[in-house]
Amino acid sequence: MLYAEPIARLIGEFSRLPGIGPKTAQRLALHVVRMPREQAQSLAEALVAVKDRIIHCSICGNITENDPCRICTDPGRDPAILCVVEEPKDLVAMEKTREFRGHYHVLGGAISPMEGIGPDDLRLKELLPRLASGEVKEVVLATGPDVEGEATALYAARLIKPLGIRVTRIAHGLPVGGDLDYVDEVTLARALEGRREI
Amino acid sequence: MLYAEPIARLIGEFSRLPGIGPKTAQRLALHVVRMPREQAQSLAEALVAVKDRIIHCSICGNITENDPCRICTDPGRDPAILCVVEEPKDLVAMEKTREFRGHYHVLGGAISPMEGIGPDDLRLKELLPRLASGEVKEVVLATGPDVEGEATALYAARLIKPLGIRVTRIAHGLPVGGDLDYVDEVTLARALEGRREI
Repeated sequence: MLYAEPIARLIGEFSRLPGIGPKTAQRLALHVVRMPREQAQSLAEALVAVKDRIIHCSICGNITENDPCRICTDPGRDPAILCVVEEPKDLVAMEKTREFRGHYHVLGGAISPMEGIGPDDLRLKELLPRLASGEVKEVVLATGPDVEGEATALYAARLIKPLGIRVTRIAHGLPVGGDLDYVDEVTLARALEGRREI
Repeated sequence: MLYAEPIARLIGEFSRLPGIGPKTAQRLALHVVRMPREQAQSLAEALVAVKDRIIHCSICGNITENDPCRICTDPGRDPAILCVVEEPKDLVAMEKTREFRGHYHVLGGAISPMEGIGPDDLRLKELLPRLASGEVKEVVLATGPDVEGEATALYAARLIKPLGIRVTRIAHGLPVGGDLDYVDEVTLARALEGRREI
């Protein structure tokens, strides 16, 4: 053991975080040695606070302090349109566009046979009861543009369509500000396919 | 505020760590939401334990739980040879070579006029008293192979030489401009082996 036990232990704990290798873990732990005590305390408290205070909204599945969450209880939002996303971070990405004022449904992941994640592991069963009242007129499927996201969108569409509700999928295409020849062929083909009159 | 307060706060705390940008901080905070409570608690405790239990060795300046540290109190080590390094991580890198069995002196940095770090900001003043007893026969300067490390080595050499003690510098062979603890053990062992009088 080359580091004193508390440091070795902190390096170990940092290493367990995703994307943090042993070198980064060491760098972070040694930074903690130098940082003011209040800052280390503050990080420690923030970690525990997340575990103590964060729950999932029983309606939409988003992470929240209060159940139901702010979005589900916001009277200014349109209950006729429901956006289905994989993860809370995708909901945040949608919110940042400031273009969507409907409600959300967070699945908690995507269908992935590779990782052993099937429809029953997602909040798909909680989706249908939300559509039963007839209030929702459109479901926007905003799952990821990868294989798992596509599979999940197709699966969800097949569930929802029999209810006579409009089901849409966010468009594939070129990233704004990108370069045409930096985009892969599949994306460019989709962008061509999805072309619209201007 | 797009995330609930405890999550936003944790993202903020992670962002303050070196090399952790806003995207990584978000990824880490959302990982904490999913991780077992015990793991978050364990990371929080490890953070506080480092602040509670880690001190600097009053002899060598290394980080330790006990003062003096394990290396300074190890009777199996050779007190005739003293290795001067910038940071605790450099000491660990030296230890990993298993080639050095002497004592250490950790400066706490390197002379850097750019960052306003002068000789008085380092543990250079604590170095001379350690050499006064005449027990130390050789000082190995293992500061980094960059400009600051070289300047620090030269400065230290000028302080030590009048005492009639042999002063050596670990060999070049280290990639210039690199960081001591990013070098593989074999290279660092070679550099130690090839040290020359300055």
